[in-house]
Amino acid sequence: MAVYTDLTDEDLASLLAAYDLGAPLAFKGVAEGVENSNFMLETETGRYFLTVYEKRVRAEELPFFLNLLSWLADHGYPSAAPVTDRSGQILQTVRGKPAAIVTFLQGLSVRRPNVAHCREAGAGLAKLHLAAQGYAGVRANDLGQAAWAPMFERLKSAADDLKPGLSATLTADLDYFAAHWPQGLPTGIIHADYFPDNVFFNGGKFAGAIDFYFACVDALAYDIAVALNAWCFESDGSFNITAARALVAGYESQRPLTPAERHALPILAHGAAMRFFLTRLADWGATPAGALVKPKDPLEYERKLAVHREAPDLVLMGAGQ
Amino acid sequence: MAVYTDLTDEDLASLLAAYDLGAPLAFKGVAEGVENSNFMLETETGRYFLTVYEKRVRAEELPFFLNLLSWLADHGYPSAAPVTDRSGQILQTVRGKPAAIVTFLQGLSVRRPNVAHCREAGAGLAKLHLAAQGYAGVRANDLGQAAWAPMFERLKSAADDLKPGLSATLTADLDYFAAHWPQGLPTGIIHADYFPDNVFFNGGKFAGAIDFYFACVDALAYDIAVALNAWCFESDGSFNITAARALVAGYESQRPLTPAERHALPILAHGAAMRFFLTRLADWGATPAGALVKPKDPLEYERKLAVHREAPDLVLMGAGQ
Repeated sequence: MAVYTDLTDEDLASLLAAYDLGAPLAFKGVAEGVENSNFMLETETGRYFLTVYEKRVRAEELPFFLNLLSWLADHGYPSAAPVTDRSGQILQTVRGKPAAIVTFLQGLSVRRPNVAHCREAGAGLAKLHLAAQGYAGVRANDLGQAAWAPMFERLKSAADDLKPGLSATLTADLDYFAAHWPQGLPTGIIHADYFPDNVFFNGGKFAGAIDFYFACVDALAYDIAVALNAWCFESDGSFNITAARALVAGYESQRPLTPAERHALPILAHGAAMRFFLTRLADWGATPAGALVKPKDPLEYERKLAVHREAPDLVLMGAGQ
Repeated sequence: MAVYTDLTDEDLASLLAAYDLGAPLAFKGVAEGVENSNFMLETETGRYFLTVYEKRVRAEELPFFLNLLSWLADHGYPSAAPVTDRSGQILQTVRGKPAAIVTFLQGLSVRRPNVAHCREAGAGLAKLHLAAQGYAGVRANDLGQAAWAPMFERLKSAADDLKPGLSATLTADLDYFAAHWPQGLPTGIIHADYFPDNVFFNGGKFAGAIDFYFACVDALAYDIAVALNAWCFESDGSFNITAARALVAGYESQRPLTPAERHALPILAHGAAMRFFLTRLADWGATPAGALVKPKDPLEYERKLAVHREAPDLVLMGAGQ
């Protein structure tokens, strides 16, 4: 849950003065997203979503994200579309912070995706990759493979505190990634945070994706790897091969993988587990006791790392081989 | 902000199975109310609000509150109306906690009410008192005058910690209330928490009230006193007589005060300040550091207590005398 910036009716009125959206009818802070403040806004012309960007999103990167959302909406992808003010601007300033109004995207996220959800989610991810083709914006993946070893330098003792001996295991993982990380895979815009809470369904069908604030240019198959970790593990820590097959098959119903992409999935999934383990470990230690956000348990991703380390063939089996 | 109970899509599906509201289209936790978990729910048949009642609301009192909401809606008062399931039940159980679905009430609360808002709010409060006439439910005001001295017994040292010598001043206040608290005023259902964040406007006009979970039977004029404290103080701590006149005049446009009620307003306002001071002081000490709710500053109400103690005529001037 997250409403870090408390907006008054007067803040809202000044913001809306720049738009042709009519008078506000309802306005509520919503518990969605953990990085920014989000509000459901209803006006005489419809329903919208107002996001006030907090510290984790760099203001200079917002045009990349917001223009991507506009591009995706223009290319038929179901995502929240930024709304321009009368002067054609998307980006606004509210209480000294960047903010934007987007259309309200209908749908429900699922907490425990079933196999059918995984298939739909996979297809939705491929549609995202295809719809984003041609988008001119460029943003490097600042949480990509090259970033992990430097991040880990500061977290070694935290890792050993979490589980004695863990830092040596992770160092070996990072060395393995450095030596074997796949090169030359097809790249494009990836969501990079395609978790169940960022994907909407309507009547069990894929209805869109939200929260593009990690989007960047990277290997498309890496996005699948992130999704396999996020969607295809059971709560007992086991990897659900059936769910993984469905996710990959759903993806391939829209965009078939190249043999190199398929072959790379085990190390990509192993690496993707490292990426989320590292940021969760960093947040775990850094979140003050009085914070309004509960940090996510890094151990969940430590267990996923172990699965990929010990049984990389599971992912390949999940990829239909 | 408050979403204490995290509901999954599956929780929602089991809840909705008892209703004829159609399939869910959107579901978002909202940052509204500090006592309960609230969710905006859209289904094929419309928009609703789902509340999961947390510890502060006593389950056995929920029928009083929910039947009151139904009564008010049936009697033309703009409030969220409880929705019954197929068996006619309002009260449900979700994750072991009581819960209810109500209709979505449109409108915006105002942070800094102006004089016109105060007039509208006053009229809205009188409409509430009139619409509630005939409601058979009874609930004593467990935070009424009789409760303050016992509450204060546990808070004396906290009061002196807040401000040296404060407990002696407050003891004198409590003695004064015990000796002079008005008796025999017209009673009825009062909201008892008629603060700006619980009142909605649409285009500057009163659009309804929410959050009836302190409602009880008490002197109607006490509800005005609570509202005068909540609506008519400036952020610098001064009492805005113009705003108070507008609030009382708005009230009297719907329900004229008796002379005894008008005469009682100073002590009622002084006492209402005590009630909110005491609960804020209790929450201030009791809220753990990691809580998701920031307690409200008791000093705001300590200052209001001082105003009423030192210049009771201000409230009478605000009441148009």
